[in-house]
Amino acid sequence: MINEVYRNMLAEKSVIRTIAEQATKRRGEIGADNVFDFSIGNPSVPAPRTFDDSMIELYRTADPMALHGYSPSTGNVRFKETIAASLNERFGFDYKPNHIYPTSGATAALCHALRATVCPGDEVVTFAPYFPEYLPYVQACGAKLTVLPPDTTAFQIDFDALGQAFNPNVAAVLINTPNNPSGAVYSEETLTRLGELMRRKQREYGHDIFLISDEPYREIVFDGKTQPYPSKFYDNTLSCYSFSKSLSLPGERIGYVAINPRATDADELGPIFTQVSRSTGHNCPTSSIQLAVADVAGETADLAVYETNMNIIYDTLVRLGFDVVRPGGTFYIFPKALEEDAVAFCSKAMKHDLFMVPSDSFGMPGYLRMSYCLDTDKVRAGMGRLEEFVREEYGK
Amino acid sequence: MINEVYRNMLAEKSVIRTIAEQATKRRGEIGADNVFDFSIGNPSVPAPRTFDDSMIELYRTADPMALHGYSPSTGNVRFKETIAASLNERFGFDYKPNHIYPTSGATAALCHALRATVCPGDEVVTFAPYFPEYLPYVQACGAKLTVLPPDTTAFQIDFDALGQAFNPNVAAVLINTPNNPSGAVYSEETLTRLGELMRRKQREYGHDIFLISDEPYREIVFDGKTQPYPSKFYDNTLSCYSFSKSLSLPGERIGYVAINPRATDADELGPIFTQVSRSTGHNCPTSSIQLAVADVAGETADLAVYETNMNIIYDTLVRLGFDVVRPGGTFYIFPKALEEDAVAFCSKAMKHDLFMVPSDSFGMPGYLRMSYCLDTDKVRAGMGRLEEFVREEYGK
Repeated sequence: MINEVYRNMLAEKSVIRTIAEQATKRRGEIGADNVFDFSIGNPSVPAPRTFDDSMIELYRTADPMALHGYSPSTGNVRFKETIAASLNERFGFDYKPNHIYPTSGATAALCHALRATVCPGDEVVTFAPYFPEYLPYVQACGAKLTVLPPDTTAFQIDFDALGQAFNPNVAAVLINTPNNPSGAVYSEETLTRLGELMRRKQREYGHDIFLISDEPYREIVFDGKTQPYPSKFYDNTLSCYSFSKSLSLPGERIGYVAINPRATDADELGPIFTQVSRSTGHNCPTSSIQLAVADVAGETADLAVYETNMNIIYDTLVRLGFDVVRPGGTFYIFPKALEEDAVAFCSKAMKHDLFMVPSDSFGMPGYLRMSYCLDTDKVRAGMGRLEEFVREEYGK
Repeated sequence: MINEVYRNMLAEKSVIRTIAEQATKRRGEIGADNVFDFSIGNPSVPAPRTFDDSMIELYRTADPMALHGYSPSTGNVRFKETIAASLNERFGFDYKPNHIYPTSGATAALCHALRATVCPGDEVVTFAPYFPEYLPYVQACGAKLTVLPPDTTAFQIDFDALGQAFNPNVAAVLINTPNNPSGAVYSEETLTRLGELMRRKQREYGHDIFLISDEPYREIVFDGKTQPYPSKFYDNTLSCYSFSKSLSLPGERIGYVAINPRATDADELGPIFTQVSRSTGHNCPTSSIQLAVADVAGETADLAVYETNMNIIYDTLVRLGFDVVRPGGTFYIFPKALEEDAVAFCSKAMKHDLFMVPSDSFGMPGYLRMSYCLDTDKVRAGMGRLEEFVREEYGK
């Protein structure tokens, strides 16, 4: 008989996907030019040509037995060496290859990190607004996801709320910076305070508390700044990464967990991840993709368009009177809706063929997520439409 | 803190991997020519050149946004259409694309099939000798794996044992044909009796019982025969497949679950599998690999060497007085050891640089698995060494 757990999950259909499907339907009806779809976060810039060239070279010249053969259960050695060296150089770290565990994107990285460090009955703390998929990841561990209210002035961490929520059942804190959906970049100050609090709680409760850090937007930071590396601020950190955004490779399913070498049992965690893999059927990411990504690990796609788009949207939102925090990175912006009910606001916008995601599924009401993985011309046209919509519906 | 479930799994190190590691170590000491490694089942023939050509063509000419973009959550449509058409043609079926769910190899296929149809506390029945990884797959569902003793005359199903073992807790029967490690190919008669018994038990217990059929060796069948398609004999069948063996692509991680269109809730199972994926972080296999495999779905690597090797080994084993059933397929053979303790037998063989896997980890004692994914010259030389070993140690 079908396991009812999954049947029930099916009933909770993804809000983001439902809105995106409506946008797709509307494109069919009135043409893509007339639809302004700010709902889905799919990279809109091509992967670097060097990646494609590397794949072609592999398929042309590599020994087919080696190229198509099983990678070792802990991942391809060249991939692990390259990622360790790259992180060591950028962040002054001392990762060894055995601290890098290749996964099928950040999704698999997070699921491995959570399953390895969280037991049934444990609690995982995260902060609103948060990526809705965290809920099934945590629930599948038999654990409880506790979502703390946001600091809406800058979307950094509300440490009063965190201090009060901490209890001995908390096995892990799950952060996402740069943040989907708020676009916030956690500051050095935020990460320093978080590290201090978590160290104090570890001592107080006498057990490890892991920081699981979801970092797929690490390279999309604006104004010439960089994302402070969370693992530098707290030893028990598992950094979960995907090349989906930085190299525009979401369909190729490639990412990793980087285990802080000073984490408890750091050298044991890689082998523990292989056991998680055995029990979920994950195994390693595609071997050829591991090799080609190793060839281009220091590169990114041309990500500049996201900053251009953000500035256009931010300026428009401010001009139209929205309450909005300027994003430090990602390809999302998270303004407050112009009425209390963001679902109603987004429904009205849809009648103007403007597609945006209300914030309720991100763990807090009243806001909306706009994604700007779009051509800049499309963003400009969309801002025209937004202005019409706001004038007509809200008299602004 | 590290989840002890995985730490304990780590302690139960894979016997196959341990033996393969010893063989590798020995190759370093005395040279590969002097080591006869029948331990690991890695395909030994290259993938068809058409697959590599298809990958190169994709990376040269496809729209990079489409090629590297997310595939739909239920998989690439062209892959699903191609597989459905191929299975319909070969087996007279009526699969629609939504009955094909792409996975990262058979491992992920089995884990999806099991999680979707088995609940915590349920029982899954399989037959010795069985692939040892079934145990973590089933245990991760919170279910119990019941291993039934073998029919050692032909390694078909012992229906007396199965009839006695059946009980209302059985949610699924897990078969593997052609079989790793015995090489047995389940006959039409076996599959007919299995289907009849399972239908009777479904009626008796008033609930569905799924047949989960692990079929990565489907195309490696000897003597010009074919594997009868298990799903034809029982409607509630989920066929789990991998291209690892037929196309020699184990590292590329590509396979599928095919849902029998007459299974209960057949049209709901694909979406249910996406929910399993969400909770394990699987998502879809690499998008470019789905596309390239769709291009070559009807092909196989040149698999003839496995039959050549099997005949050489089988004839040698018979001549040396081993009790052995001639395999109908796969790249394994499963003779009885020449002493009761197969672990002792394999240890003695290792001193002659002959590496074989004792059957204990396959759920029954006293036998050994020999894999022949090797050049035929190597197999011939290995048979010479086997003869020396058997003469010296057992006076045959």
